Amino acid sequence: MVNVLVWNENRHEQKSEKVRAVYPDGIHGAIASFLQAPEVQVETATLDEEQHGLTQERLDQTDVLVWWGHIAHDEVSDEVVERVRQRVLDGMGLIVLHSGHFSKIFKKLMGTSCDLKWREADEKERLWVVDPSHPIVEGIGEYIELEKEEMYGEHFDIPSPEQLVMMSWFEGGEVFRSGCTYTRGNGKIFYFRPGHETYPTYYNEKIQRVIQNAVQWAAPVKRERPVYGNAKPLENITVKA
Amino acid sequence: MVNVLVWNENRHEQKSEKVRAVYPDGIHGAIASFLQAPEVQVETATLDEEQHGLTQERLDQTDVLVWWGHIAHDEVSDEVVERVRQRVLDGMGLIVLHSGHFSKIFKKLMGTSCDLKWREADEKERLWVVDPSHPIVEGIGEYIELEKEEMYGEHFDIPSPEQLVMMSWFEGGEVFRSGCTYTRGNGKIFYFRPGHETYPTYYNEKIQRVIQNAVQWAAPVKRERPVYGNAKPLENITVKA
Amino acid sequence: MVNVLVWNENRHEQKSEKVRAVYPDGIHGAIASFLQAPEVQVETATLDEEQHGLTQERLDQTDVLVWWGHIAHDEVSDEVVERVRQRVLDGMGLIVLHSGHFSKIFKKLMGTSCDLKWREADEKERLWVVDPSHPIVEGIGEYIELEKEEMYGEHFDIPSPEQLVMMSWFEGGEVFRSGCTYTRGNGKIFYFRPGHETYPTYYNEKIQRVIQNAVQWAAPVKRERPVYGNAKPLENITVKA
Amino acid sequence: MVNVLVWNENRHEQKSEKVRAVYPDGIHGAIASFLQAPEVQVETATLDEEQHGLTQERLDQTDVLVWWGHIAHDEVSDEVVERVRQRVLDGMGLIVLHSGHFSKIFKKLMGTSCDLKWREADEKERLWVVDPSHPIVEGIGEYIELEKEEMYGEHFDIPSPEQLVMMSWFEGGEVFRSGCTYTRGNGKIFYFRPGHETYPTYYNEKIQRVIQNAVQWAAPVKRERPVYGNAKPLENITVKA
Repeated sequence: MVNVLVWNENRHEQKSEKVRAVYPDGIHGAIASFLQAPEVQVETATLDEEQHGLTQERLDQTDVLVWWGHIAHDEVSDEVVERVRQRVLDGMGLIVLHSGHFSKIFKKLMGTSCDLKWREADEKERLWVVDPSHPIVEGIGEYIELEKEEMYGEHFDIPSPEQLVMMSWFEGGEVFRSGCTYTRGNGKIFYFRPGHETYPTYYNEKIQRVIQNAVQWAAPVKRERPVYGNAKPLENITVKA
Repeated sequence: MVNVLVWNENRHEQKSEKVRAVYPDGIHGAIASFLQAPEVQVETATLDEEQHGLTQERLDQTDVLVWWGHIAHDEVSDEVVERVRQRVLDGMGLIVLHSGHFSKIFKKLMGTSCDLKWREADEKERLWVVDPSHPIVEGIGEYIELEKEEMYGEHFDIPSPEQLVMMSWFEGGEVFRSGCTYTRGNGKIFYFRPGHETYPTYYNEKIQRVIQNAVQWAAPVKRERPVYGNAKPLENITVKA
Repeated sequence: MVNVLVWNENRHEQKSEKVRAVYPDGIHGAIASFLQAPEVQVETATLDEEQHGLTQERLDQTDVLVWWGHIAHDEVSDEVVERVRQRVLDGMGLIVLHSGHFSKIFKKLMGTSCDLKWREADEKERLWVVDPSHPIVEGIGEYIELEKEEMYGEHFDIPSPEQLVMMSWFEGGEVFRSGCTYTRGNGKIFYFRPGHETYPTYYNEKIQRVIQNAVQWAAPVKRERPVYGNAKPLENITVKA
Repeated sequence: MVNVLVWNENRHEQKSEKVRAVYPDGIHGAIASFLQAPEVQVETATLDEEQHGLTQERLDQTDVLVWWGHIAHDEVSDEVVERVRQRVLDGMGLIVLHSGHFSKIFKKLMGTSCDLKWREADEKERLWVVDPSHPIVEGIGEYIELEKEEMYGEHFDIPSPEQLVMMSWFEGGEVFRSGCTYTRGNGKIFYFRPGHETYPTYYNEKIQRVIQNAVQWAAPVKRERPVYGNAKPLENITVKA
């Protein structure tokens, strides 16, 4: 059983009828809906809940956290961000979607600005699979095509991905590292580019499949955590002059 | 269901009573025995079988191939080696154990000499986990200690591992990259250092657990294979002067 | 002083007036010409020379080998390929250009098929820099644009690059990992995509700059080579029961 | 010309006669002394200077910053740490030594806890070169031996190094990833383990050579920085229904 928590800022949905029309149950609702599966337990949380819905107790019960945020990154409290980061270091998987590239939690885990080029122009995106051996692309063909998406372009200021799984082509002339994995401590992180709030991207079955796969991939490994600090020697040490 | 084929050179077992005493069913028998599990089907093959037991049909039915060889690397036919390589590129997982570092198949997939330092001196090895997030070390503590093993020391002439999972400390003063993952084409490869033929290493439960985990990790991803060669454009190309 | 040897198959130039019109001194001549510099000594060699111009003595004097080949990969003798490989493992830098992706030497060092999609359609290529910290892109802007080039598309069947420096966008809808670094033994390898024989790509100053930078990056490190084989212990080993 | 700034906390030197006996000019003095070279300009700065000696102007003139800190990490102001981080993202090289693993700047750039095992027991350390192709080990043999050092042991909670150059063996039974490279934005980072304040490690010529090499490796690449934010299309975008 994998316990998934889908976190959404849930602000565009409040402010914009256009977004509400695309995601009547919120982006979190749409994502939670397709993640439901026999061995997957899914819940949601949003920014305006107490502690953003991310109490210590709830995070402790979460195996994989999915993160969507955009216009209210600054409203996420530093305390909660640090709590999430500690849980990732402790083993919780983290899937950061689209504009979450600029979330406090992603920037803190990466150490870089996470900046990029962007453009809203209803343009075509084609995500090419460059690592065909990766479990995150199980069931995915050579590429995923999205008729209209926001453009994100290089340079994307992230640390070099540990595994680069997908790369995007954009109609307007740019490319982007769109599916990137990282490890931080005991935790696994997947950044996945698509998902602008005005497009029905999260209803695309291939996009859904990638996120479903990523949940399985990011689930924590079951083992005792490393011990740090002062350590007694395991072997005899020669006394030296 | 994961179909595993454990391949062993099976020569030390014929020649040496000492080895036979440790592995009465052969190293392949010992490995096959602990890999048996509800969702894992295990068979074995050895060098002296027709085509080394590695016919095209059998490889086509294999999800993960485990490889142990040492004194007869040169007797493995180039044709079979190339057949195995094609299956790895096609998605079959490959787990190369100990002296398999010098096997034709590992060297061909790595592109380097795969050379190293070595010594048989009944010395202690301690394998430290350096990637606590990796599924290959599920259930494994901070390190695995082997009272007596052959030493393998750096420089180990391999391409930089895509993921370095374990590093060994040796009593005689050396270190070694002991658990290394690679991808080649659609296939995943894990090199795991321990397992000299005169020591009961493959009866160690932690060593068994690592290889069991590696089988799951290396199982092929289910997806259509990439298409290569001449490709029609997906977008209109402007005719230029 | 860096000693560079530019190797070219030099067959298109013999067969095609169109290619000759673009590269009257051969592709090797064009490349050698822009690599000349105060601290760089450049020579050329071609397929039809004795031993393809790649004798042991000459390779021993070479710091960085640049490789261009396309229609005659099979005519390169296996013996010479193995000789070049040994020199790379020994520290010689290797820069593989464009259709050299299918050369025996590149495939042997990579371990994979090195296959890809391709198309000749006079289309635009834009190479985006994705690693702005890399010395290979010193002096290069955000991207290099080539008005007409052959398309190479993913999936490119190479091991995951150790450093991915550039990614290409193609007019027809594909992307490609265009600037990739590897290490093999003591040697450094750079694969650089552009350079179809019918286009004046190697006269583009930015393309020239990348190759000039790559020569400096790939030059061998001066140090004693690792020692392999049986090794005496550096520390006392306890005698065990 | 490479402009190097050696930063030292300089507190042990004030408090401990033992440390002062080893480093009468401070650890920064010792390091600055061996980094002086014809094409290298070296200055020093310490914690107790105004703004820790790390004003914006001074950082802007610095190509490579060397960092040694231990007991006063918390006294480094967050503002200065962020200033240093921005300069790294902008291209400044950063060499983090020994106990600097726990400095605010290293932790912020890594995103992890950077925790480890440690022990002060006058024990032997042997640093093995695992990447013989790397310019940071030019002139270095197979290993560097230090008769007495503090032990640092795995698990070292860092992101997987982009290049793992050296690994340590410790007498007491541990191993450690001792020479690790990273890139963050336009900047290059090298973490190098040795250098406890009570040992004469920085007088060891091989240790000096590694740091000298690292300065050259980490020097910024000369190119215009990437542009971020809203971007006009480079190609026509089809208007869609």
